[in-house]
Parts: sequence; C-alpha cells; structure tokens
Amino acid sequence: MDSKHCCNENRGKMCGLDEYIKEIIGKPISEIETPALMVDLDIMEANMDKMMDFLRDSGAGVGIRPHAKTHKTPEIAMAQMERGALGICCAKLGEAEAMAEGGVPDILIANQVIGERKIRRLAALSKKPGLNLKVAVDTKENLEDISRESARQGGHVGIVIEMEVGNRRGGVRTIDEAVELAKLASTLPGVWYAGTMGYEGFAVFMPDYEARKAAANGAYDILLGFRDAIKEKAGLDSGIVSAAGTGTFPFAGKRQGLTDIQAGSYIFMDMRYGSTAGVDFKNSLAVVATITSHPEPDLYICDAGLKSMTQEFGMVGTLPSYGLKVANMSEEHVSLRPDENPEGLPGMSELDEKYAKPAKKPLGVGDQILLIPSHCCTTVNLHDILYVVRDGKVEDVWRITGRGRFA
Amino acid sequence: MDSKHCCNENRGKMCGLDEYIKEIIGKPISEIETPALMVDLDIMEANMDKMMDFLRDSGAGVGIRPHAKTHKTPEIAMAQMERGALGICCAKLGEAEAMAEGGVPDILIANQVIGERKIRRLAALSKKPGLNLKVAVDTKENLEDISRESARQGGHVGIVIEMEVGNRRGGVRTIDEAVELAKLASTLPGVWYAGTMGYEGFAVFMPDYEARKAAANGAYDILLGFRDAIKEKAGLDSGIVSAAGTGTFPFAGKRQGLTDIQAGSYIFMDMRYGSTAGVDFKNSLAVVATITSHPEPDLYICDAGLKSMTQEFGMVGTLPSYGLKVANMSEEHVSLRPDENPEGLPGMSELDEKYAKPAKKPLGVGDQILLIPSHCCTTVNLHDILYVVRDGKVEDVWRITGRGRFA
Repeated sequence: MDSKHCCNENRGKMCGLDEYIKEIIGKPISEIETPALMVDLDIMEANMDKMMDFLRDSGAGVGIRPHAKTHKTPEIAMAQMERGALGICCAKLGEAEAMAEGGVPDILIANQVIGERKIRRLAALSKKPGLNLKVAVDTKENLEDISRESARQGGHVGIVIEMEVGNRRGGVRTIDEAVELAKLASTLPGVWYAGTMGYEGFAVFMPDYEARKAAANGAYDILLGFRDAIKEKAGLDSGIVSAAGTGTFPFAGKRQGLTDIQAGSYIFMDMRYGSTAGVDFKNSLAVVATITSHPEPDLYICDAGLKSMTQEFGMVGTLPSYGLKVANMSEEHVSLRPDENPEGLPGMSELDEKYAKPAKKPLGVGDQILLIPSHCCTTVNLHDILYVVRDGKVEDVWRITGRGRFA
Repeated sequence: MDSKHCCNENRGKMCGLDEYIKEIIGKPISEIETPALMVDLDIMEANMDKMMDFLRDSGAGVGIRPHAKTHKTPEIAMAQMERGALGICCAKLGEAEAMAEGGVPDILIANQVIGERKIRRLAALSKKPGLNLKVAVDTKENLEDISRESARQGGHVGIVIEMEVGNRRGGVRTIDEAVELAKLASTLPGVWYAGTMGYEGFAVFMPDYEARKAAANGAYDILLGFRDAIKEKAGLDSGIVSAAGTGTFPFAGKRQGLTDIQAGSYIFMDMRYGSTAGVDFKNSLAVVATITSHPEPDLYICDAGLKSMTQEFGMVGTLPSYGLKVANMSEEHVSLRPDENPEGLPGMSELDEKYAKPAKKPLGVGDQILLIPSHCCTTVNLHDILYVVRDGKVEDVWRITGRGRFA
C-alpha cells in the first residue's frame, strides 16, 4: 500500500492531516478547523477517577470493563486500564481489532460474531500475544463454529454466555441452554469458558431512579441465577459476570456477585445522560462549531449538523453562558436563537465556566461555540479525530481508530 | 507519511483492506462482511438517466449540478458528469477537496466557508489546474476575506451569492445587499461573479404535491427577482441560478430562468423520499446486514444499528418479500418481527425482486437481509466504503472519500 493509495483510502484532509496535527498542537482551540470533536482532558480524567473511587468505596468487589463503543480510541482505553479497569468491552469485532492494535490487553466483544469470514478474523485476533480475547455467544452453532476455526488456527477465544435479562435482543432464554453452552465452552478445543453477561439496556434511561434501580436489580437477579445454575449443574466457576451501563452503574457497582460493569458514557456524558437522575458525571465532550451566518438579529447558524452530531436521542445542546439555545438542526447546520434565561444541565458547569463564560459577547460570524451532543457514542462515531484539550489548548490529537469499524 | 502511520489513521480493517477488496470483487454479496453499504449499479444508473431525460424533455433549459453530499464518492460524481451534469455541489470545503482529488472539474460549495485556515484552503483549491471552483457567500466581510487571500495566493474563486428564499438559514436578506455583493464580486481581485443560489429546503418534503409546487415556485420567484435586480442595477448577467432538491426537481426542472438544480438523493432514494409524492426514482441503496440472533420465533436481530444507519428521518425499512418488518433500532442492532402483509414503497420493487424474493426462507441466524436507509445522505456518511453491485455480485468497491470531511 503506497502512501498515495493509503491517503485516498482514509479520512481525508489529504496527506496534509499529519502536518495539520503537528501545527495545531499547543494552539488555542480557536484555531481548530470546525466542526471538530473535543474532549476536556481534566474533566474526562476526573470522571474516570470518580468512577474508580465509587467502585472501591462501595466495597462490593465489582470492577469495571468500560465500553469502548463510547470513545473508540485506544488512548482512552489505555487511560482506563491505567486506572485499574479489568479490560475493555467492544461492540464489534472491528472495534476489538482497533483496540488490540492500540495495545489493549483484555477485550470482551459484548456481542455475537457471526459468519465464516468474521470467525476467521476472531480466531486470528485471539492469537495476538498478550491479548485476552472474549466474545459473547448465545447459540450452540455459533460456539461450535468458533471452536472449530479457533482450533484450526491454534487460537484461544474466551466464551462469555450472553443471557436474556429483559432486553429482548440476543441472549439465551433458558437455564438449560446456558448450562449446555457453558459445558461445551469448557470442553471444546480452541475456546475456554470465560463467564456470563446480560445487559439491562431497557433500564438504563428510566427517568425514575427507584424504578430504574428495581429494574436493574431484577435483571441482575436473573443473571446471577444463571451463574448459580452453571455452577451447580456444570460445576463451573462463574468467571466474569458482567452487566450495566452508565444509567445503572450505581446499582450494579454495589451488587455482590457481579464482577464488572460495562459503563461507557460516564467519561464524556451527553444531553441524555445529563438529564438522567443519579448520573452525576461532568460533560467533558463537545463539538466545536463556528458561527457561519448571523443573518437576522435573533438567528445564528453554525457549521455543525447531522454529519458531525447525531440526533436520535434528541436535540443537541449548548452551554448556558452563551445566552443562546439550539432551535433547529439540519444536515449541515445548527440554528441558535437568543435565550434570556438559559438553563444548563448540572454536568455542564465546568465546560461552561471554562469555555462559554470567557467567550466574546455578543457573538458573531466567525466566533466559535461549543455544542453538547445528545448521544456521545454515535456522535463520536462520526469523527475521525479527537482534539484533546487542557486549559483551552490542544494538548494532543487522537485518532478514533475504532470509528466506523462496525463489521 | 509511512504506510503504518497511514493505516493507523484510516478507516480500519487495518492494512488488510486492500487485500479484502481484491478478494471480494466478483464474489456474490453473500460474502460481504456486514453491515455494509451497497448500491445496485443498474438501478442507480437508471435513476441518473431518468433525471437527465426529464430535464432534456422539459425543454426549460435547466441542467443539473448534483449534490455530492448524498454520495461523497468521486466515482459517482464522475458518472454524473459523464451523463451531462454541469458540475457537482458540495456541502463543505473538505468534500470539495475530496471531489477535486477524484477528478471532478466543476464544483460549487453551496455553503459559506468561514475562517482564516479554511479560506487559505479554499484559495489553494481554486488554483488546481482545470478546476472551476465556486462558493456561496452572503456577507461583504466573507467576500473580502476570500478575495484578499485568493489574490495573495493567485487563486480565482467563483462567488455565488446565496439568497434567502424562505429557508431561514444563511443567505442575504435584501436586494440591496445582493446587488452590492455582486458588484464587489465582479470587481475585487482573486474572485469572479458566478451567479446566485437559493435552496428551498423548507419545501422539499411537503407531503402535498400542489402545496410543495406552490412553495417551490414562490422560492424561485424570489431567487429570480434577485437575479433580475442584479442584472438591472449592477449590469451583470446572471451566471448560474441554482436551486432545488430531489423533492422539488419536478418544478425547478420546468422553471425557465433557473440554470441548474442541486438534487442529490434521486440516485439512491430512501424511506423518506420514497414516501414523497411525485419523486418516482427507484431505491438503489441498501445496508446489507446479517441476522445474528433469532432467539424467539417472532424476533430476529441484525448486526446493523445506529452506527451504520441513521434514524433522524424515521425508522429504517426492509424489503417486503422477506415478510419481516423493522420493529426497533438501537446502537448496534435492528430488531425485526414477522409481518403477514408487508407493504413496500413503490421504489423498492426492483431491489425486492432482485434480492428479497430469491432469499432463503425461513430466514435464520447467518442469513443476509437488506435494510433500506431512512435518510441516504447521513447513512452514507457513516460508511468508508461502498460495495458496487450488479446482478448480485460485487463489481467494484469504491471509497467514500468525502465521508466525514465536514470541516
């Protein structure tokens, strides 16, 4: 692959990207070409520390295997590992390859990997020296396919049995199936029995805190019941018992028997999690946009849109001190209008203090503004690079190498 | 940039991507690693031909400058040029750079380009030999900035004055401003006056055909009024007069005085345009997905989700002959349930005949299924490669080099 070919293949800004990155490091964020994704490193690190403190203080012995679908960035995964994460979750095989390339030593693909070509890639990845690779499985056929190919290649794939805990997606439905799969996983060649998982995705955004707690604990009851049955009927120790997202970590983190939680969004936060009771991390992620048109006194048009920010979890936001509210969003534009009494979500306070309060007022064409994603995971998935900012300056630029690796 | 670095920077599947592409060409689509974006080339080409036939037959002298925000793929832009397109529209400077790299000789950036760094890139791009580059402008300040930098670099940037025609985004609001800008564009160094544009985005999805026609023609009245005033008060010929999307092309294509339409989606179609009256192109674009779990008799889980298909225009669809309907969509999954009386949109007929009717029934884990995007432009923006399919086989793989180039 020569470099010209490679450049045609990649994210763009042509071969100038490396030069641009070298040039932008150390500069204030006002020099970033927008729209661009940025993370405030101090705030993100404080979120990571807060989670680790919570898990240690809860005393239940639950660890964290953070979900990389949120950041898709090996540098962030490694920062999580350095703080004591047990490993990293990935949603897809391609993401797992990206994390392994970036040096992550322990990866759980929390999803089924189906099809000959992918199972070949899975088995090949499991042979990477120093990598502990696990994958979710919910059928005997898939387990046998993985075993056969892994044995052929000399690989060793950890099998985590996915349980249905109320989410109505994948996952085995009965204890008998789970016990049979666990026995098979512990005896077939090329694979090993690594434990169980069940994700209570239906619960993570429940607005009522107590209802969410009850729903989550009900899901953990089911999951721990499966674990006990496997222990009793197959004589197998539980291995990992993995569950939970950012909306349910307060319950999972206190639940003895679970070994790790899969929360991802807590490092960045977004509009949706920011308005979810009891999830009190700070917003660290923003899309830096530029006002490109101010054609009427009460109308500001920005250069971010659906190509750089997703909308399936609702409208994006902005910081209260700008005095503007997001009125509309289209493919290439966000429209803002004056807001006399702007109300920010509690988690925005630090971003607001650092970036919006010192901003020039009144704002006009060419001025920058920070927009807050409504869903951090899918917004990150639109971007190839992440500007890493500390004290308003670009400290580094990280490549989001897991972006778009959904196959 | 050495190749290792370049590979870390790019879309993924690591350095194996080139090998994978070589291997997959000529194979049936059942061998594609999913989720994956595919276009049926026969259907797409028929859509292109149909649009050219309509414009020729209408006799109004209106041409097409198709919007590349839909496909972001130079190969498709060049196929449009070969069929007689006047040039290509881009939404952003980065997209324009990608199209120019791919050989497109005439590009209108139908949006403002703001900020020192970007104006430097714009001026540099305008110097590419054989490229006719135009950009939308709506303020004197931006026009002067572009002129100064373009003159400094020895560039020549065409200035298209964006008019407000009812969309409430960018665009000059008064005839006096438009006349002043046109005069300036025709006299300042480094730039030239290239014409006018006004996009009636508020009208393109109006469900009632007659209401949509009235709204569109009202917008063209405004735009042509601006054009006449520039002719009368500044003595300048109109240059291009550009408007319209896929929902309004039937009106714009018959409107004397307009020179070109900016429709983009007509080549692919999607769920939203497929249910818009009078837009009778065929669906040519689909996301190829695999059923990864079938845990209950009435529930099928696919490996596509919000990372590979957008949702802001509503739920994605599938083809009627599968006998399944899309029930739900999450970040990594689409859930389908049986549908006794499936109703497809009219434009799906050819995809259905070619792909869904011959599919194995009943469907199970490992089987492929085609999903239809609700919004083609933002769905394409999630993918790095496009599988080009004819007669069910992969004829080529094109890199979507404009993907994510929103800065």
